[in-house]
Amino acid sequence: MTDTQVPPGLKGVVVTTTELGDVRGEEGFFHYRQHSAVDLARTRTVEDVWHLLHRGRLPSPPELAAFRAEVAAARALPAELTALLPALAPLPPLAGLRTALSALPGARPVYDADPAERAADALRVCALTPTVLAALHRHRRGLPPVAPRDDLDAAAHWLWLLHGTEADPRHADALRRYLVATVDHGFNASTFTARVVASTGADVPAAVVAALGAFSGPLHGGAPDRALAALEEIGTPDRAEGWVRAQLAAGGRVMGFGHAVYRTEDPRSVLLRETALELGGPLVDLAVEVERRVVRTLAELKPGRALHANVEYYAGVVMSLCGLEPALFTPTFATSRVVGWTANVLEQATDPRIIRPSARYVGPEPGRRPAPPAARERT
Amino acid sequence: MTDTQVPPGLKGVVVTTTELGDVRGEEGFFHYRQHSAVDLARTRTVEDVWHLLHRGRLPSPPELAAFRAEVAAARALPAELTALLPALAPLPPLAGLRTALSALPGARPVYDADPAERAADALRVCALTPTVLAALHRHRRGLPPVAPRDDLDAAAHWLWLLHGTEADPRHADALRRYLVATVDHGFNASTFTARVVASTGADVPAAVVAALGAFSGPLHGGAPDRALAALEEIGTPDRAEGWVRAQLAAGGRVMGFGHAVYRTEDPRSVLLRETALELGGPLVDLAVEVERRVVRTLAELKPGRALHANVEYYAGVVMSLCGLEPALFTPTFATSRVVGWTANVLEQATDPRIIRPSARYVGPEPGRRPAPPAARERT
Repeated sequence: MTDTQVPPGLKGVVVTTTELGDVRGEEGFFHYRQHSAVDLARTRTVEDVWHLLHRGRLPSPPELAAFRAEVAAARALPAELTALLPALAPLPPLAGLRTALSALPGARPVYDADPAERAADALRVCALTPTVLAALHRHRRGLPPVAPRDDLDAAAHWLWLLHGTEADPRHADALRRYLVATVDHGFNASTFTARVVASTGADVPAAVVAALGAFSGPLHGGAPDRALAALEEIGTPDRAEGWVRAQLAAGGRVMGFGHAVYRTEDPRSVLLRETALELGGPLVDLAVEVERRVVRTLAELKPGRALHANVEYYAGVVMSLCGLEPALFTPTFATSRVVGWTANVLEQATDPRIIRPSARYVGPEPGRRPAPPAARERT
Repeated sequence: MTDTQVPPGLKGVVVTTTELGDVRGEEGFFHYRQHSAVDLARTRTVEDVWHLLHRGRLPSPPELAAFRAEVAAARALPAELTALLPALAPLPPLAGLRTALSALPGARPVYDADPAERAADALRVCALTPTVLAALHRHRRGLPPVAPRDDLDAAAHWLWLLHGTEADPRHADALRRYLVATVDHGFNASTFTARVVASTGADVPAAVVAALGAFSGPLHGGAPDRALAALEEIGTPDRAEGWVRAQLAAGGRVMGFGHAVYRTEDPRSVLLRETALELGGPLVDLAVEVERRVVRTLAELKPGRALHANVEYYAGVVMSLCGLEPALFTPTFATSRVVGWTANVLEQATDPRIIRPSARYVGPEPGRRPAPPAARERT
């Protein structure tokens, strides 16, 4: 055992190579394969980017049409899950999703499956995720699930599944940008978890189920409802500075600001601010003015830290403007991120090597030794 | 980002320290805290070792009595799971367990919980695991679940839950040794997965659900039913040598032989051979003689590799002698290993630091740069 010395928590340790994308924190830039993710969010649908990550390139128009048909055909709940969902509705939404995907029959161990089978398993998990989450949401409200359609892109379809009515195209388009911009974002903890599980050869649902566990951890981040709650708690711009000072004095965090990797503005928050401003309204005016004051106050109180609004801040604003209640923010995020998790699973499956580091024992020296291995003489 | 160079799959990379135990592959020795695991398997119950790993030391007699009462009180299925289990019975057993634990309500994020709450969540997951697996097993056979009891140790209780009759004490004792010897075994992939998920602050069931995903991976190992199937396929000692030669010639593995870490005999297989010989019978005679011939043939065909019987080989024999059918071998393993996973979760929870390595992007250079960040002038 080499017992390589590494930083705590494996921070900065390169565990694998990837062709899926990268986050350049110093440049305020992230990309999916060779395309700027923010540019894709401005111009493309979730299905384009899903094809890009799962199939290796942006689709041509006929490829996109075929891919959308494949996705649409995989949206309907299998009977096993339809029967299960009412019992799962009382769980937190992502625990309900995790439980439903854990019960999905028929997926194959990734190293045993051929690439087409793996791709189909990954597509199915992604296509079912919004269907499951929306059905759970409606069960919780005593409403019957809405049947999936085959003529809407992922963003419009998500709003359709939730509400059973066709969304305002401006809302569907704003949500489309949010979803495309959050499909993947480097090697975060849930993505890493998905890859570790896939590296054992387990099936795609097992890897996504595990990723959802990591995603539920408070240190993982990604809870846009908290940022909107903070904004609503602040209420008026003139209260922003005092609120920040009070949060920091109490040892708390300022939700929606600061990022582990970006030293610039979070490019997703730039995109989503622009999206919010296009939609407009008093919440947007409040958000922009509070952001300005919070950033100024943070620059004074935490000099040199370059704390900006992160993706959560305007994500909550945009989703709220699109008619989503806060309880749906994180489920909405999951409908796009599952595309990234499964892309990572598919990539991991091309390198059949288990990810398995070591631990160093630091407890008391064990007091006994095994008996001399006399039994070995037998062999 | 330091971009530390590490071996593929993080092999040998120390990701954390642990006081739970270690595997010394060169010595053929593994230990739980400062105690030889094989010695514990000879003399102690699962509950002793569970207390050792979860609470830090072997219990005194009154501590053990109190701990057993705590475990017994946590064995009964909550109503949410009772209602769910019939629908999960068609799934593979560990997928059924994973789904049921994923639906377990009420656990707290590990970093938010105080140590007593975390310990209670961990104990509950461990105490429920056999109840869930046995109920699923009986549902599959059209039998009603057996109500848990409070007067049996984990080994005898597992046989009770499966069969609804009190086990032969010799079988309960043999199974006790197997279970104690398989509670934990270094930093395997499922244990690592549990720790990664716990490191995000997720709750104990989320970590165990993720571990079960890794455990289901073919590269993880731990499928004693395959080793017994191979033994039954060989059938008579004189066929052992030819069978090994045919397996290797076809590029296959010899199930039940060889281990990633041990260069000696697997100390668990030494213990379980001894246990099998005490129980005796034609299957044991066959297993011992086949082992002798397989090891001799492997030494000839793979010189220098020191290939011995691993834990799977005699585990299948012992479980079979204890009246367990092969479909129950891996579930039986899970009833003990969940104690190790949760011990790792509890240890991880004392170090609130996310485990999150990096990936290196090796795809084509992205063709676009973000627009100049004019928006930053606003802040």
